[in-house]
Parts: sequence; structure tokens; C-alpha cells
Amino acid sequence: MKPHKIWIDEIHGGSRYGLKGTILIKKRSPFQEITIMETENHGNALMLDGCWMTSDKEEKYYHECLVHPALSSLKTASRVLIIGGGDGGTARECLKYSDISLIDLVEIDKEVIELAKKYLKELGQNAWEDKRLKINICNGLKWVSNTQNNYYDVVFIDCSDPSEISNEIYSLKFYEECKRITKKEGIVATQSESPESFPAIHIEIIKSFKQIFKISSTMYSFVPFYPSGIWSWTFGSEDSTQFLNPQYKHIDSIENSCDIWNLNYQKGAFQMMPNKILNKLKKI
Amino acid sequence: MKPHKIWIDEIHGGSRYGLKGTILIKKRSPFQEITIMETENHGNALMLDGCWMTSDKEEKYYHECLVHPALSSLKTASRVLIIGGGDGGTARECLKYSDISLIDLVEIDKEVIELAKKYLKELGQNAWEDKRLKINICNGLKWVSNTQNNYYDVVFIDCSDPSEISNEIYSLKFYEECKRITKKEGIVATQSESPESFPAIHIEIIKSFKQIFKISSTMYSFVPFYPSGIWSWTFGSEDSTQFLNPQYKHIDSIENSCDIWNLNYQKGAFQMMPNKILNKLKKI
Repeated sequence: MKPHKIWIDEIHGGSRYGLKGTILIKKRSPFQEITIMETENHGNALMLDGCWMTSDKEEKYYHECLVHPALSSLKTASRVLIIGGGDGGTARECLKYSDISLIDLVEIDKEVIELAKKYLKELGQNAWEDKRLKINICNGLKWVSNTQNNYYDVVFIDCSDPSEISNEIYSLKFYEECKRITKKEGIVATQSESPESFPAIHIEIIKSFKQIFKISSTMYSFVPFYPSGIWSWTFGSEDSTQFLNPQYKHIDSIENSCDIWNLNYQKGAFQMMPNKILNKLKKI
Repeated sequence: MKPHKIWIDEIHGGSRYGLKGTILIKKRSPFQEITIMETENHGNALMLDGCWMTSDKEEKYYHECLVHPALSSLKTASRVLIIGGGDGGTARECLKYSDISLIDLVEIDKEVIELAKKYLKELGQNAWEDKRLKINICNGLKWVSNTQNNYYDVVFIDCSDPSEISNEIYSLKFYEECKRITKKEGIVATQSESPESFPAIHIEIIKSFKQIFKISSTMYSFVPFYPSGIWSWTFGSEDSTQFLNPQYKHIDSIENSCDIWNLNYQKGAFQMMPNKILNKLKKI
């Protein structure tokens, strides 16, 4: 018998985005409700607590834009921290850089990783078998507070939308901690939500980064899968010499490996702040 | 008694995008089914034949990106043609340019205009009362074929997705006709669909413009409201001197009037071709 196809929707402020398919797994971990669906047209898709997180078809829009602006702009990077990122997509993109010797992936919910390994193979691909990737099941705040100064080249904050389990990550104090554990010439990179669906949080993140880092910048691009389709990533650094300028020696091969990102795309994306957000920031 | 709120979805290839609200009007014109909904969080929204076209909240993402790249790059523009555009949003943006003496809005379905005037007042605003705006209820192809050479400064193709009533508009022949009726230093501007939801049509439009015009360029931006959120607009011209470079003397006031668009945003948007589309075009 054919499995029964249903719609699952993410509902957000009077709008909903739904995918059709069959549920592969739906379970409650100690932290959240995890649903993975085999969809008609988007491959396998992951939902956490009612919010679509990623899908085979669209994940590159998100992961390429989080990783490559930071890593392509460092001549070399050895140690990387990923806070969240349990689906494996961010780690996969990081592993394209040959100088990387350690990726600490710090995920609070081990069930996400286990289910991603099983049902979202397109996301992590071979990353899970790579010896440079170290999985740490741990609260991200705790991990960061236990890390020595200037340890990582890049810290990626790859977490879900603000909620009970992630609220503390969206704070000035946490970003300051991330800066502390990042090398002076390194970069802290975070997804910074949608200016349409979460304008207040979006602006708050930008303000915090401007306050903490000598230089910071926000890029806008598409995540067809998220409410409103428009998404943002914000980057901060103390060292302007390497910040968001291409430095990595094999950058051509990174470009060739990407579905969405290239250097030109990135340059454009950093100019795409909607006028209304620009005006709001001017008033602050 | 409170009106009953319902969900209405646009369904597209295994995904759906729905808005919650109450239906203001739902009727079948000779051309299409027209639905207008008062939504919970997106203002009033227009659906044609099951596809969301525009809403109060998000229409500026679309209309500002269609109009301003073209008009801001001409020192002066006197006559403008809008093919489609029955919601009034494109006309409203055009009327911000003081040199414009005539806007021919050519809409096939007079019901769309009548209902937009009544239910989508945020869209057209005062445009409908402006004497420079001439409404022509007519087939766009017919109108164009009856127009003399080099008549308009800018031709905007502001039509719905390919369907029985709009298919002929998506053709090399039609774009050639649009070029014929545009002044040599003028610009033809069209919405060019989503590279995610309609990749084949999207690439076809880009190819056609490259074939017909000396110079053409595609910009990518957000329409949070459309399937996939990513949208594109393509511009063609015979005259490189004015093409997509700021020329209009009161450009500051145009920028100040916009929610989304500004010159910097536009510059970025023209660089945002996803790598996979770039690679597909290289192979052609």
C-alpha cells in the first residue's frame, strides 16, 4: 500500500508554508518535537517544533551563505566551531577547506544528529565520517564559556529561531563570549533571521554585532523554504584586513562546488538591505 | 457576527503558501477567477486563478524592483507603457517621476482594475485619479502591435505567470515587438519569474532578452509572497549609456519614498544570480 501523503505546514503570523509528503519520523526529544518528511518535490525535509529547518532541495541557499563569506575570506583557518548545525550542512561546507583541522560541532539535541544521519543524508553527506569533525552533545552557551580565549578561527552560530531552548543564544552577552573565543583575525558568523518575519530580532542582532565588533556586516539572500523567503546572515570581526574579502587560495574550487554562492553573489548580497531596515538602523 | 476566517493556499509543486483571513470578493471574470482576501497580517491580498499576485504588505518588494531600475536610469521619460499591472502598483511607482506625461496601462481584464480600485486601495493609491494615467482595457499583444515604432520611453511587462491568457506574452516575438515600440535610448522591463519555481521560463526569458537587446541584465530580489520567495526582473536596452545607471535628477526623493529599493540595493540585486543559474546560462 502506498503511504498516505499529507500536508505539513509551518504557521507564522497569519501565513503558512506547507509541504506535501509522507512522514518518515515524528518524535519528541527532551528538547523539541522533530519531524522529518519525505516530500513530493523538496527531497527530505526537517521540521523542529513546527518550523521548517531545512530540506534537501533548498538547504544550499542557507548553508553556503553562512559558511563561505567567512571561510573564503581567511587565508587559512584551522579550528572552527559550529553552534547548532545538527543537520550536518554547515559542517559539510566547512570541510571543503583543506586547512581545517578541527570542526567542533556543538549540538544540544543528539536526536537531531542521529535522525539527520539516517534521514537527511544529502545534508551531511560524508561529513559525519570525516575525522576532522568532532560531535559534542552540549549546550552551546556552556561550551563557549568553557573555551579558552582566541581559540577558533571562525565561530558559526547555526541555531533555530528564538525559543525556550535557543533564547539565550540571541544575546549581546553570548555574542561577546563568541568574540572572546575567536582569534583576533577571525570571524563570528550567525544566521540573523528574516527582516520580514522577525524584524525586531533581526535588528537586535545587527545592533549587537555593531556594538561588539570593530567591523560587522549583514548579507541578505533567499531561503525559499523559510517564512517570507528572505533571510540574513551577520558577520563580525576585529580585523578588517581579511573581513569578507576573498583570501583563500583555492577559492575557485569552492565556487565550482556551490549551487548558489559565488564571490559576485556574495558581493551583491551584502548590498541588499531593504530600505526600510536601513532607515530603522539610521534612527538607532 | 464575526466573519469566518479561512485559509487560502497557492499550491505549487508539492508546496503551498497560504494566508488566513476573510474573503472580500470571489468571482469569475471572462478571463480568470479573482479572489481578494482581507488577511490577518498581510493587509488585503489578490489571488488570480489560484496564484497570489500581490498584497498590501509585500507589494513594494515587487513593484519597486520592476519600476525604479528602469526609470531612475533615464534622465527623462515621458511616455510609459504598462502591460498588465491592473492592481495599480506599477503605475503608482511610475507616477513618482515628474517628467512622465503619459502612462498607458493596458489590462486585459477590466474586473481586476475595478476590484483593485475598490479593495486594494493601498496599491493604486491616488494613481487612478492622476490624469497622466490612461486605462486601456485591451489585449496587450494587440495594443503593442498597433503602436508605432519608438513611441515609449519604457515598456513594463507586469503580467501574471504563464497561463492560457498570458502565454503569448512569454515569447521572443512579443519581446521583439516591445523593443520596436520603445525608443532607442529606452528600456524594456519585465518580471522574469522565479529561478526556483519556474526555472525553465526564467532562463528562457533571459535568453530571449540576450538575443534581442544589445544589453540586458537580470536582477534578483525577494517577493516574500510568491512561491519560493525569490523573484527576478529582466531589463533590456539598445543604448548602454543610460542602462541601469542612475540618471534621474530627483533620485534622492525616489529613494526616500521607497520601502525596499535604493540604488545600493539595486546594484546588489543585479549580482545575485544563483551559481546554478549562471552555470546553466554558460552552457547555452
